[in-house]
Amino acid sequence: MLRTATCGQLRADQIGQTVTLCGWADKYRDHGGVVFIDLRDRYGITQIAFRMEESSEIQQLSSTIRHEDVIQVTGEVVSRGEDNKNPKLATGEIELRANHLVVLNKSKTPPFEPRGESLANEELRLQYRFIDLRRPALQNKMFLRHQLTRSVRNYFDELDFIEIETPILGRSSPEGARDYLVPSRVHEGAFYALPQSPQLFKQILMVSGYDRYYQIAKCFRDEDLRADRQPEFSQIDIEMSFVEQEDILSAIDGLLARMVKDVRGEKLPTPLPRYTHAEVMERFGTDKPDLRFGMELTDISDLVEESGFGVFKNTVGSGGKVRGLCVPGGAEKYSRRVLDNDLKNLVGEYGAKGLAYFKVANGGLDSSIAKFFDEKEQAAIVERMGGNDGDLLVFVADTYPVTCAALAALRNHLAKDLELYDPKELNCLWVVEFPLVTWNEDENRWDAEHHPFCAVHPDDVEYFESDPSKIRALSYDLVCNGYEAASGSIRIHDPAIQQKIFDLLNIDAEEAEERFGFLLQALRYGAPPHGGIALGLDRWVMLMTGTDNIRDVIAFPKTQKASDLMMGAPSEVDQRQLRDLNIKIDLPE
Amino acid sequence: MLRTATCGQLRADQIGQTVTLCGWADKYRDHGGVVFIDLRDRYGITQIAFRMEESSEIQQLSSTIRHEDVIQVTGEVVSRGEDNKNPKLATGEIELRANHLVVLNKSKTPPFEPRGESLANEELRLQYRFIDLRRPALQNKMFLRHQLTRSVRNYFDELDFIEIETPILGRSSPEGARDYLVPSRVHEGAFYALPQSPQLFKQILMVSGYDRYYQIAKCFRDEDLRADRQPEFSQIDIEMSFVEQEDILSAIDGLLARMVKDVRGEKLPTPLPRYTHAEVMERFGTDKPDLRFGMELTDISDLVEESGFGVFKNTVGSGGKVRGLCVPGGAEKYSRRVLDNDLKNLVGEYGAKGLAYFKVANGGLDSSIAKFFDEKEQAAIVERMGGNDGDLLVFVADTYPVTCAALAALRNHLAKDLELYDPKELNCLWVVEFPLVTWNEDENRWDAEHHPFCAVHPDDVEYFESDPSKIRALSYDLVCNGYEAASGSIRIHDPAIQQKIFDLLNIDAEEAEERFGFLLQALRYGAPPHGGIALGLDRWVMLMTGTDNIRDVIAFPKTQKASDLMMGAPSEVDQRQLRDLNIKIDLPE
Repeated sequence: MLRTATCGQLRADQIGQTVTLCGWADKYRDHGGVVFIDLRDRYGITQIAFRMEESSEIQQLSSTIRHEDVIQVTGEVVSRGEDNKNPKLATGEIELRANHLVVLNKSKTPPFEPRGESLANEELRLQYRFIDLRRPALQNKMFLRHQLTRSVRNYFDELDFIEIETPILGRSSPEGARDYLVPSRVHEGAFYALPQSPQLFKQILMVSGYDRYYQIAKCFRDEDLRADRQPEFSQIDIEMSFVEQEDILSAIDGLLARMVKDVRGEKLPTPLPRYTHAEVMERFGTDKPDLRFGMELTDISDLVEESGFGVFKNTVGSGGKVRGLCVPGGAEKYSRRVLDNDLKNLVGEYGAKGLAYFKVANGGLDSSIAKFFDEKEQAAIVERMGGNDGDLLVFVADTYPVTCAALAALRNHLAKDLELYDPKELNCLWVVEFPLVTWNEDENRWDAEHHPFCAVHPDDVEYFESDPSKIRALSYDLVCNGYEAASGSIRIHDPAIQQKIFDLLNIDAEEAEERFGFLLQALRYGAPPHGGIALGLDRWVMLMTGTDNIRDVIAFPKTQKASDLMMGAPSEVDQRQLRDLNIKIDLPE
Repeated sequence: MLRTATCGQLRADQIGQTVTLCGWADKYRDHGGVVFIDLRDRYGITQIAFRMEESSEIQQLSSTIRHEDVIQVTGEVVSRGEDNKNPKLATGEIELRANHLVVLNKSKTPPFEPRGESLANEELRLQYRFIDLRRPALQNKMFLRHQLTRSVRNYFDELDFIEIETPILGRSSPEGARDYLVPSRVHEGAFYALPQSPQLFKQILMVSGYDRYYQIAKCFRDEDLRADRQPEFSQIDIEMSFVEQEDILSAIDGLLARMVKDVRGEKLPTPLPRYTHAEVMERFGTDKPDLRFGMELTDISDLVEESGFGVFKNTVGSGGKVRGLCVPGGAEKYSRRVLDNDLKNLVGEYGAKGLAYFKVANGGLDSSIAKFFDEKEQAAIVERMGGNDGDLLVFVADTYPVTCAALAALRNHLAKDLELYDPKELNCLWVVEFPLVTWNEDENRWDAEHHPFCAVHPDDVEYFESDPSKIRALSYDLVCNGYEAASGSIRIHDPAIQQKIFDLLNIDAEEAEERFGFLLQALRYGAPPHGGIALGLDRWVMLMTGTDNIRDVIAFPKTQKASDLMMGAPSEVDQRQLRDLNIKIDLPE
């Protein structure tokens, strides 16, 4: 090794020792007779002192060192003295009195400094990602990601899970609108597809008796980039045999507790609360509720169906709902202008035609439309909403789904705006009993809510004929801070139920064979009851580090900019390469 | 859980307990009043007894169970009695006296049984991979693979390495003849490439100060399938900063010792022997020598340059070499027919025009060409070759490279044929000091032996002008049992040396920027001295399990057969999907 210690290692105990350090020149100060350089590596910072009286030659060379030069320094570990200690630095009691200096590599002047005061703009940082990756804040996230995956692996290893790699080059399924396709040179005219998940393979591993499988799997989706989405992503992928839903949920409860303990040193109370899909829709309007705060949705339809306010009355009369939120202390906070513009527009994005609002004052309602409600109605509404004087009540009158979507978005917006929660808190819950299928209005058919292999709640088989919307799947999502942090289901192993679902989804035998043939065949040769789940690794690192930017948790993220080409944006390729593949690109004029 | 114990768990201690097991019906015997079923899961086998006197209903149902049906059985753990113990089975002291049976899933009649006496042919097993994967021999290899990766991760975690994921969707480099290309839907007309290795990314991580990186990385090469090669493969990928060659070698010595200990429970003596490239070429004719056996190459050029045998004399006269092997006890074993046909053809494949051979008899040579050598010459040859009576001496007279290639192949062939080694032995060595460049006769230029980033031996910089063939790279291969099991190098961090190498390889500034721009730019902003290595994971599982078939160590391998389509062979895709990508396939008529 070119060093005998790292820059994070030296303490008062080592005073008097001669050591060699290597690293990057961080801050430097030239005080005439002495040059101080903060030497940085992954492990920390050590102050180096180049003193004229030690070696004028070395001292002179040291004065040529600039930001991000890579150097090797040998010297004696000395005390900084009581007055010069730096309690903020782990190595703050000592400095290295250098008597030897090798410039291992000069750096061009960096466009920004890794430990600079202010953060350079993201575009510049992405362009110089190799410097950005030196920022301690970003390095800490990469370390945490490593720590998290290690924690995951240790947990599953201890529980006798086996990690098995499934293929990246797989088979395209006809519906794979988001599949990346990969032309094969060896098989002319044929394409591989990159997996959106290892779903089929992990189910086959259960059929093959592997009993408990996990993998940190690379998955791909050919979609536009977003702040929280990348075309390639990693998921913690799990499948277990001879289990029921509760077995999976409690295995993952244990995983999360382990992750939070290993990574944050905190205790996560388990079991995590379980909510049904119907309950979270009713109380929070979404299947991804953020439970770091309350402010639940409340239904006042029955209170206003005979009121003098036509919008409410007519909505309820035509089968719709009037639901709302009580915003504590919101009366002062939100002006009429904000309510009539910003907040109304927000709910409008989710299909709501309007936003009704009242201030709670003297136990009754105060607003331009308050006059349409008599005193008794006003009192009943305030009571139902749990309103106190100074609170703001907001209502959406619309179909049930629109009230859900609009109020869920409004609830999140208001909670963030009012700082109703600690952004670092981690709040997790299970949502279970998702509907098996949802009606696709556009295409006039039933769509699978997850995929066509979700097992059916045993009580609901009768609804296949009478009302498929009532069939509950044995599927479950883990929701954390309002994000879907995991999703899974018990799978079908009974061919008769599988057929019922294909029938319901209008998947005929030929299509089923074409899309899922290898799995369907496997299921006929002794499939055990099994189920599984997948956790988004990127999302978990984001949750654990409290960032909303997925580019903070991936070393080499994809970006929209051409300047990041080298980091993995696609590029135009040689015509020769395409000719080899018998491919023609047919770009629109 | 649908079970309270696994099929590998029960012992005499549990006698009297009531347990529930789940698994696959393996062997079954119907003895009239009692049906015995061997119930199998990943953890073992438990014998289940369904007795008429326990429950005639259950006993009757049990008689309908066939191979690979999935069942759940509840009953009492009972002793088999002294006479019926099965010492070959971990659970052989007990059986389960069943009083409850649930058929969880019937199986179609399997095309072969996972624990059948004889192994079905590989094509059938690949077609029914989900059954093949139930074979204990194959499951053991998958478990060993898991154990091996765990061992690797533990080792590097303990040494402060950090695991970082690098992109799968990357940038194609113009020379990437073996790159898989991936058209992007979002960036029209542009292509990603799948990585042949994370080389550029791991070097950038060193520039970014991550100090010690590892990853079990997916890599891709669009090439024909072979018994030991798959188009996608996993490599244990490592890079370290502030190191010299010996630091990498000893880190990997430690890794191998750990792997062998964890997986085989054996001690691997380290440090592994280091040989120079020149030495292994001289002694074994190959840079991948199998050192499980001796039979080294011996040069007799100086002994025969004045001999009466024209072929030898002329070869040496024109600058060639006469080199050979001494095959212990080979005189009897190899007939003239085999020597003149099989073995001559073998060396012929490597360019040798002939194979000369002699038996050692009475301390001299015995063969049709022995007469061309006088007694003194014969004795000198026998002595040089270390021949004893009854040995066979074989020689190739040709250019140095041809004698190397031909005799290396012959040496391997003879050693296998003569069973000179234990196929389970693991023999590893380092080959260091590879030439930096080799002369490409066809294209009249120097080619990089590894890649253009290998650092140069400090003593050899002078040869850039005088004789580039003499420049040694700071590169190293790990060779085990005759296979390349790892390969790496110290990288260049000095821009001046990098420029010299680009000049030597005729890579101009524009081409360098196009191919390696992102890395070259990073190297200008403070690159530490660094180096690394990559180990083929598939190869290591093969070495550890003693198989030559790569399909034995990958759960879902690619195969040539269309019947394995589902397992990940490419397929024809929807025209609609291609239209979305603006791609036309232009197959030859």
